[in-house]
Amino acid sequence: MTALGLDDLKARLRLPDPGGAMHDVVRELYPLCRSITGNGVRETLKIVGRQIPLEIREVPSGTPVLDWVVPKEWNIRDAWVKDPSGAKVIDFRRSNLHVVGYSQPVRARMPLGELKRHLHSLPDRPDWIPYRNSFYRDDWGFCLSHRQLQSLPEGEYEVLIDATHGDGSLTYGEALIAGRSSREILLSCHVCHPSLANDNLSGISLLSLLGRYLAELSPFYSYRLLFLPVTIGAITWLARNDGALSEIEHGLVVTLVGDAGRTTYKRSRRGDAAIDRAFAHVLKHAGDHEIVDFSPYGYDERQFCSPGFDLPVGCLMRTPHGQFPEYHTSADDLEFVKPEALADSLAKTLAALIVLENDRRYVNLNPKGEPQLGRRGIYRAMAERSDGGGREMALLWVLNQSDGMHSLLDIADRSSMPFEAIREAAQLLLEHELLREAVPGELGRGGRS
Amino acid sequence: MTALGLDDLKARLRLPDPGGAMHDVVRELYPLCRSITGNGVRETLKIVGRQIPLEIREVPSGTPVLDWVVPKEWNIRDAWVKDPSGAKVIDFRRSNLHVVGYSQPVRARMPLGELKRHLHSLPDRPDWIPYRNSFYRDDWGFCLSHRQLQSLPEGEYEVLIDATHGDGSLTYGEALIAGRSSREILLSCHVCHPSLANDNLSGISLLSLLGRYLAELSPFYSYRLLFLPVTIGAITWLARNDGALSEIEHGLVVTLVGDAGRTTYKRSRRGDAAIDRAFAHVLKHAGDHEIVDFSPYGYDERQFCSPGFDLPVGCLMRTPHGQFPEYHTSADDLEFVKPEALADSLAKTLAALIVLENDRRYVNLNPKGEPQLGRRGIYRAMAERSDGGGREMALLWVLNQSDGMHSLLDIADRSSMPFEAIREAAQLLLEHELLREAVPGELGRGGRS
Amino acid sequence: MTALGLDDLKARLRLPDPGGAMHDVVRELYPLCRSITGNGVRETLKIVGRQIPLEIREVPSGTPVLDWVVPKEWNIRDAWVKDPSGAKVIDFRRSNLHVVGYSQPVRARMPLGELKRHLHSLPDRPDWIPYRNSFYRDDWGFCLSHRQLQSLPEGEYEVLIDATHGDGSLTYGEALIAGRSSREILLSCHVCHPSLANDNLSGISLLSLLGRYLAELSPFYSYRLLFLPVTIGAITWLARNDGALSEIEHGLVVTLVGDAGRTTYKRSRRGDAAIDRAFAHVLKHAGDHEIVDFSPYGYDERQFCSPGFDLPVGCLMRTPHGQFPEYHTSADDLEFVKPEALADSLAKTLAALIVLENDRRYVNLNPKGEPQLGRRGIYRAMAERSDGGGREMALLWVLNQSDGMHSLLDIADRSSMPFEAIREAAQLLLEHELLREAVPGELGRGGRS
Repeated sequence: MTALGLDDLKARLRLPDPGGAMHDVVRELYPLCRSITGNGVRETLKIVGRQIPLEIREVPSGTPVLDWVVPKEWNIRDAWVKDPSGAKVIDFRRSNLHVVGYSQPVRARMPLGELKRHLHSLPDRPDWIPYRNSFYRDDWGFCLSHRQLQSLPEGEYEVLIDATHGDGSLTYGEALIAGRSSREILLSCHVCHPSLANDNLSGISLLSLLGRYLAELSPFYSYRLLFLPVTIGAITWLARNDGALSEIEHGLVVTLVGDAGRTTYKRSRRGDAAIDRAFAHVLKHAGDHEIVDFSPYGYDERQFCSPGFDLPVGCLMRTPHGQFPEYHTSADDLEFVKPEALADSLAKTLAALIVLENDRRYVNLNPKGEPQLGRRGIYRAMAERSDGGGREMALLWVLNQSDGMHSLLDIADRSSMPFEAIREAAQLLLEHELLREAVPGELGRGGRS
Repeated sequence: MTALGLDDLKARLRLPDPGGAMHDVVRELYPLCRSITGNGVRETLKIVGRQIPLEIREVPSGTPVLDWVVPKEWNIRDAWVKDPSGAKVIDFRRSNLHVVGYSQPVRARMPLGELKRHLHSLPDRPDWIPYRNSFYRDDWGFCLSHRQLQSLPEGEYEVLIDATHGDGSLTYGEALIAGRSSREILLSCHVCHPSLANDNLSGISLLSLLGRYLAELSPFYSYRLLFLPVTIGAITWLARNDGALSEIEHGLVVTLVGDAGRTTYKRSRRGDAAIDRAFAHVLKHAGDHEIVDFSPYGYDERQFCSPGFDLPVGCLMRTPHGQFPEYHTSADDLEFVKPEALADSLAKTLAALIVLENDRRYVNLNPKGEPQLGRRGIYRAMAERSDGGGREMALLWVLNQSDGMHSLLDIADRSSMPFEAIREAAQLLLEHELLREAVPGELGRGGRS
Repeated sequence: MTALGLDDLKARLRLPDPGGAMHDVVRELYPLCRSITGNGVRETLKIVGRQIPLEIREVPSGTPVLDWVVPKEWNIRDAWVKDPSGAKVIDFRRSNLHVVGYSQPVRARMPLGELKRHLHSLPDRPDWIPYRNSFYRDDWGFCLSHRQLQSLPEGEYEVLIDATHGDGSLTYGEALIAGRSSREILLSCHVCHPSLANDNLSGISLLSLLGRYLAELSPFYSYRLLFLPVTIGAITWLARNDGALSEIEHGLVVTLVGDAGRTTYKRSRRGDAAIDRAFAHVLKHAGDHEIVDFSPYGYDERQFCSPGFDLPVGCLMRTPHGQFPEYHTSADDLEFVKPEALADSLAKTLAALIVLENDRRYVNLNPKGEPQLGRRGIYRAMAERSDGGGREMALLWVLNQSDGMHSLLDIADRSSMPFEAIREAAQLLLEHELLREAVPGELGRGGRS
């Protein structure tokens, strides 16, 4: 069960079709024009807030945050290009990808030659519109398919970008789902991309459903869910929460979790953090996957793992950014994101969190020789509770390794058995008073104690 | 020489045919009906005691031992099944495997249908009789070939098991062969299986010959040889010797050492104990073999390696239990056990013990630059003493690594040379006063010092 | 640039043809008859001394050095063998390989049968003359091609070896190129072989050119270049410099660096010394190569790495000794040594030294989140300075890992980027005051600080 199957996921979430529900979130958010600031982010967070108790934070333009400054707020009302005949050949209302994000406002007439310096297309993928932005640069531009670019007739064009850059604020969302402990698990995703389904919306949908589910549980850890615009969002959040970071025990950036590719987990900077070990364990038992080392490039793990913070934050993806052709193009659309892939990503995330929630160290109370399990009816109890083989082995492994130094995850890894089988065995042994939980600080290294 | 060849073994044991002698032990013990208690064990130990100075221990039924209690003693005089015509179709006197071990006494008549609930056979191996027991359960039964089971005619059968379960004792054997040191090497095998040749008798024969040989040497270590009924024997011995376990420096469970398969060594729970390293070294230089990690299942290493003891005890086998079809059937017979396999297992055990006996740390007395070996006649001496190449390399390796931190086994492993070549080089350098033995506690980690 | 290409090498050495210049050194030294003592060594060192500031040391015969004694000095004026017809069939003046090195003087007549006990040839390579010596043994002999040996007619031969063994001295050369620090890098080669081009002369030519180049730089380390006769030279130098060895931080033996084979680096006894890591890094980025573990056999690393010194000294070679048929034969001639191989070996040595010179630990002065590089113009500066991709990644890696614990080499290894790219990035970040050098002793382990 460590790598939750779809049936497990349905049961735990009490949802008949988790992947469908996640895809619905993606579909609802898809049309909005998001950027690193502005109303698109606000509307997105409002919709997310219908599912989980989300606090929406506004940080004024110009606020210094670490080495950065919160930029001016960008909003766009309309944008188009009219050809010499007056026909709207590019129209923001048909796809928000047509406008380069954070474009300066413009209202002008110019010949095709001059306009072309502001047009972006993909010669290799002539039917797709690229996604471009000009954060932190004063520029403007349009994106369009290469086929359309080539069909534009010579002549005088009319251009409109009706956008504002002004004092406003940067907006992000934050939800704290309190557990029994003040120790936190940080989960973050991006909310800054416009109509791109996998790149941002898949992460939002995963955290939304996970957040709704966590709120119904009574977890040990408190969960902090962050919905941030890229880079500046993480920088801003870190700047404002610097004093409280010591509560973060594990963390995960969630992105690109909806495509049909295999799951990829990228390790934290530390490389052997508990979250790294939990995902390695879950993915090993879940079939084809890839685990990659940390590198200081990618998503907001760059900021969380900068040396002044060095938080134990990994990153969950399917196909990594830049490794699929649809990345940052109009082909990253609602078809590209698969309900079953979304559900699978959620199931694996949950499985890893279940490992972190339950990883404890125990002490065998009958450590000299094996206890006589048959006399206590433990073999019988195990047979009733669990399906399939390995039950007895799980009991023997937990008894043998529970010297206070090895956590359940250590035991699962050494035995090559799924965490859940080891946890079940430990539970049964606890009930029969053959184990006690190790006292925090007693001996070992792994696990929560 | 590290992996002793047959000629070395013959010379050391002064026996023309060690494998034949071991097979003779197996053959003599084969007919006896052993179980975890009873006269079969006593007779077995009496025979072993003719070869080595064996103390026979009797522990009364009902004695609490760790989490267990010594069970009632079981003895069997006769057992049979008569078919409707009155013919003895199953007869304990033809094979003691026919009776389920520890069967309750029974004298009854019953139709075939009812009898069948007490009959065990192997449909996949229709000519073999399985081995079954009912330790710690009140039951009775017979084992027979599947072919015979299918040929039994309908009708009324007569059944006799003339067995006793009563207050008596558990019997085990223990031999201490004193060495120069009180530090001990523990060697154990099982004595509880009836007519199964590889599964128990091969181990008994190996320890018998080894014990006889050790008694003629003057070893550094004291050797404690244990002949124990499965599980309860080890539990009982551990319970009675808890205070003296700190003398045990190395240990080995010996089982299934007579089949034609390649040698398998199972590491101790610690995984890097000296015995683990000694066997890894010996087997690496002895050709095809397998080394497997510890798991808390198998033979009595389960008890010796329980977390309250955590003794450095590995397990030597050839094909592991459950991985050959003859396991726990009448096909594990005198043919299945090969004299040459027995001799090979003994040779490898001896080779590993020789490593442990001789693994010491030395200090190079001329550590600055190489000493001039030619001037001292050492090259010539080495050439006379040793056959084949590598002599000079062994000398150079011992000189280079003997800084008090590396034991001879460390050096053999780093140089990929056989332990014996390294030991010989060290001996020669000692004789020429180019080495001294490291003082116990001085620097290093490996080796005996 | 880590593995310096030929163009880089030309630029740094301000030489149009470094390989040609190195080959010229080999060619000039080739005819001299060197041995472990004598005038051949002196003449060789005199020629080397024209390129670098070489001190020539003379140590009297009979001087005790560690476990050895400086041998008598050997010089040879002439040697020949005349056949029964009086024709000089072997003539030292045609090839100094014809005489066994350190041969005792002899003037005698003898039949072919007796002479043959003093003749050495290679039956497998019938056209080559082997190289033999009789250091530390009283003997004499001639070497010749097997083809010639077989053609010698029966009869009375006349033999002359006009050589002297007398009180004199052992000669070696030593150059100290002072750097800003008194910490030293030791570089050594052999000067004892007669007309063998790869085996000794290639190493001499590499150190000569390197020494000339180092003298023009202003290096951090001081470089100590040693030109030593085999074994006794290193023993003698070590004996005379025992008190000053603590200044040696890195060391390298250079030998067999001119053949066409791939580069081989042999690790120091420590196995993970900085020089081992520097060469592993350089060679990994330079294509096909081999890294081998230390063993106490080979060149003078045997002495430098003896346990009483344990200096961090590796060994750079191309094809190792004994692994090419030309080894210690007349076929190790001027053709066998390739200018391009010599240049490549020098380039790799320089690249490794550049790593050692520049490996420092830094501290990110803006460690919380990434600094805004664009605002500072750093991306633009990097683009101007460096060619090709990876610039931004190098900046991000240096920022992410510069916590005072990781040296530039650590970062290059973790990122799999060339050291030079990492060093360039660090330089740029230093200029923009985003890094400071770590204080010596502050935190980390690697690097020079």
